[in-house]
Amino acid sequence: MARGEVDVLTIGNAIVDVIAKVDDAFVERNGLVKGSMNLIDEARAEELYNSMGPAIEISGGSAGNTAAGVASFGGKAAYFGKIKADQLGGIFRHDMRAQGVQFDSVAATSGPATARSFILVTPEGERTMNTYLGACVHLSENDVDEKIVAAAKVTYMEGYLWDRQEAKEAFKLAAKIARKAGKLTSITLSDSFCVERHRESFLDLIKNDIDIVFANETEIKSLYLTQSFDGALQALRKDCETAVVTRSAAGSVVAHGEAVLVIPAIAIPCVVDVTGAGDLYAAGFLFGLTQGIGHARSAQLGSLAAAEVISHVGARPEVNLRQHAKEAGLL
Amino acid sequence: MARGEVDVLTIGNAIVDVIAKVDDAFVERNGLVKGSMNLIDEARAEELYNSMGPAIEISGGSAGNTAAGVASFGGKAAYFGKIKADQLGGIFRHDMRAQGVQFDSVAATSGPATARSFILVTPEGERTMNTYLGACVHLSENDVDEKIVAAAKVTYMEGYLWDRQEAKEAFKLAAKIARKAGKLTSITLSDSFCVERHRESFLDLIKNDIDIVFANETEIKSLYLTQSFDGALQALRKDCETAVVTRSAAGSVVAHGEAVLVIPAIAIPCVVDVTGAGDLYAAGFLFGLTQGIGHARSAQLGSLAAAEVISHVGARPEVNLRQHAKEAGLL
Repeated sequence: MARGEVDVLTIGNAIVDVIAKVDDAFVERNGLVKGSMNLIDEARAEELYNSMGPAIEISGGSAGNTAAGVASFGGKAAYFGKIKADQLGGIFRHDMRAQGVQFDSVAATSGPATARSFILVTPEGERTMNTYLGACVHLSENDVDEKIVAAAKVTYMEGYLWDRQEAKEAFKLAAKIARKAGKLTSITLSDSFCVERHRESFLDLIKNDIDIVFANETEIKSLYLTQSFDGALQALRKDCETAVVTRSAAGSVVAHGEAVLVIPAIAIPCVVDVTGAGDLYAAGFLFGLTQGIGHARSAQLGSLAAAEVISHVGARPEVNLRQHAKEAGLL
Repeated sequence: MARGEVDVLTIGNAIVDVIAKVDDAFVERNGLVKGSMNLIDEARAEELYNSMGPAIEISGGSAGNTAAGVASFGGKAAYFGKIKADQLGGIFRHDMRAQGVQFDSVAATSGPATARSFILVTPEGERTMNTYLGACVHLSENDVDEKIVAAAKVTYMEGYLWDRQEAKEAFKLAAKIARKAGKLTSITLSDSFCVERHRESFLDLIKNDIDIVFANETEIKSLYLTQSFDGALQALRKDCETAVVTRSAAGSVVAHGEAVLVIPAIAIPCVVDVTGAGDLYAAGFLFGLTQGIGHARSAQLGSLAAAEVISHVGARPEVNLRQHAKEAGLL
C-alpha cells in the first residue's frame, strides 16, 4: 500500500483468536467470569486448550480488529503489534496485510510464541476471553515507528497494553509523538477488569494525553467508581475532549464539548458472537472522524460495523464495510 | 477415549483448511477450475496465500472430516494422518481429539510443515481447493497401526492418498489387514481429477480390495469414461458390493446387491460453503452402517450431515450430529 498519510494507526496486542462454542457449565467449571478477558500463562493455556472442543483460528486482537475495520471502510490503516516469526504469526500478518492494513512490526525470532486468545462463546453469543500474551511481551518503544505515528490522523491504543510496563512505555511514546505532530490520540479502556487494574494510571493518561476515549458502560462506571452511568459520563466529559461510550443493545453516547449525542444500536436478528463489537464500533467512528464526517454519522458507522461483526463468529468484518455502509445510506 | 473396538477408522491427508471468500474473477485470474482440488507446491502456496484476502483456519482433510463426523454422531472413530510437530499440527491434533477421535499418528519432527489447503469459496458456496501436502508426504506403512485397523468395523480411505506412492502402500496395507480381520474396507474417489490421474489403479483396487465405494456423479462418470450416470452406476455395481453415489441437490443413490435406493437430499435455505459435503455424507452413512442401521436410514444420516456442513463455513460439523439426528427422528 502507499505509505504517506495514515487515517488511523492502532497499537495493541497481536493475537490469534482460537474460538470454540461452549455451554455455560464449561465456563463455570473453569472458574471464569462470563464476558471478561483473563490473562493466562502458558500452562493454563495448555490446560484450557486441552479441555476445549474443536476450534477455529481467526486473527484478532482488539486494536488489530479496529485497524482491519478501518481498512474495510476504505480508510488508510496502520498497526503496531508484536508477533513471533512462527505459523500463527504468519497468519496474523497475512490477515492484516490482506485486509489492506500497513503492518511492518518486526517479528520476534526468539522467546514465546505468537499470542493466542481462547475465546469461549456461550449460546447467547457472549464471549469469555483467555489470553496468553506470548510474543506480545516483546512489544516495546522500539516498535514505535515515529514516522508512521506522526503521519497518522489518529493514534488509537488498547488499554490492554497497560498490563505490561514495556508496552505501556511504547504507548506513552506514541502518544507523545502524535501530540507533538498535532495529531489526535485515542484509547479504549478495553475491559472493566483492565480498568480496575489500572484505574489511577488510566485517569492520569486520559486527563493529560488522550483526546478520544472509547469505553463501555461498565468500564466508565469502574473508572469513576460509581453505579451511575450519568455520573460516570459527566466525569469522563470533564476529563477528555471526546467521550464515546457504548451500551450494547442500548446504543452509544458521544459527548464532545457541549454536545451529547445518543445513537441507537442497529438491531440484528441473531447475536452469534459479541467478540469485536467494541473494536469495530471504534473502527467505524474513527474512520468517519478522519474523513471529516460529523460525530453523529461517525457513531452510526460504528453501530453498523459492530452489528455486522456480532452477527457471525470472529472479530473481524466478513463483508466490505464501505460497501455495506453505502447500502445503508451512511456513505 | 477407550481403545478396543472402533466403528470407523479413516486414513487420509491431515490438512488445516485456510478458507477465504473470493469472487469468480479471483478464481479465473489464478487459472483455477472451480470446484476442483489442485495440488500445489510450496512456492505456489506462498504466491496464492499472498494474493488471498483475510482467512480463517479450521482443521480439515477429507478423511479427517469424516472421522470428526462419525465422532459427532457418537460413533467410535479413529484416524491415521501425518502432521508435523508445528503449530498447525498442534491445532489439527487438538481438533481431532477434542471431537473425540482417536488420533495417535506420530508427528514428523523434520521436513515440510503441516499440510494446508487454501480453500477459495465463491459467492454461490462452491469451493476450489489448493492443497500443499507438506508433512503428508511422510505418511507411510509405518503409520498403519495394525491393532487399530483390525479393531475397526470399517476402514475408510481417501482417494487423494493415491497421489503419493508411500501413502498408497499404507492404504493397501491397511486394506489387507482389514480384510484379513474380516472387516469392511471403503474408499472415496475424492475428486474427478484424482480419478483421472489414477483410473486403472482405482478400478483394480475397487474390484479386489474394497467393499464400499463412495463417489459423486462426476467421479463415477470419469471412472468408467462415460457420460451416462446410469451406465457408470451399473458398472460400479458390478465392481463392488456397495456403491454410494452422491448427486448434490439431487440426493444420493445406494446400490447394494440387487437393491438400488434413491435418497433425497435435505434442502437448506442457503448453501454457504460446500466443502466437506461428501466427507460428512460418508460419516453419516458409515456411522449408520456400523450401528446396524439399514442402508436407507444410513444414507439419510449422510444427507443430514451433509446438509449441516454446507450451511456454514468449514468442513466439520458445528452441531452435535447425534442430537441433530435425534431431533430429525433419524436416531
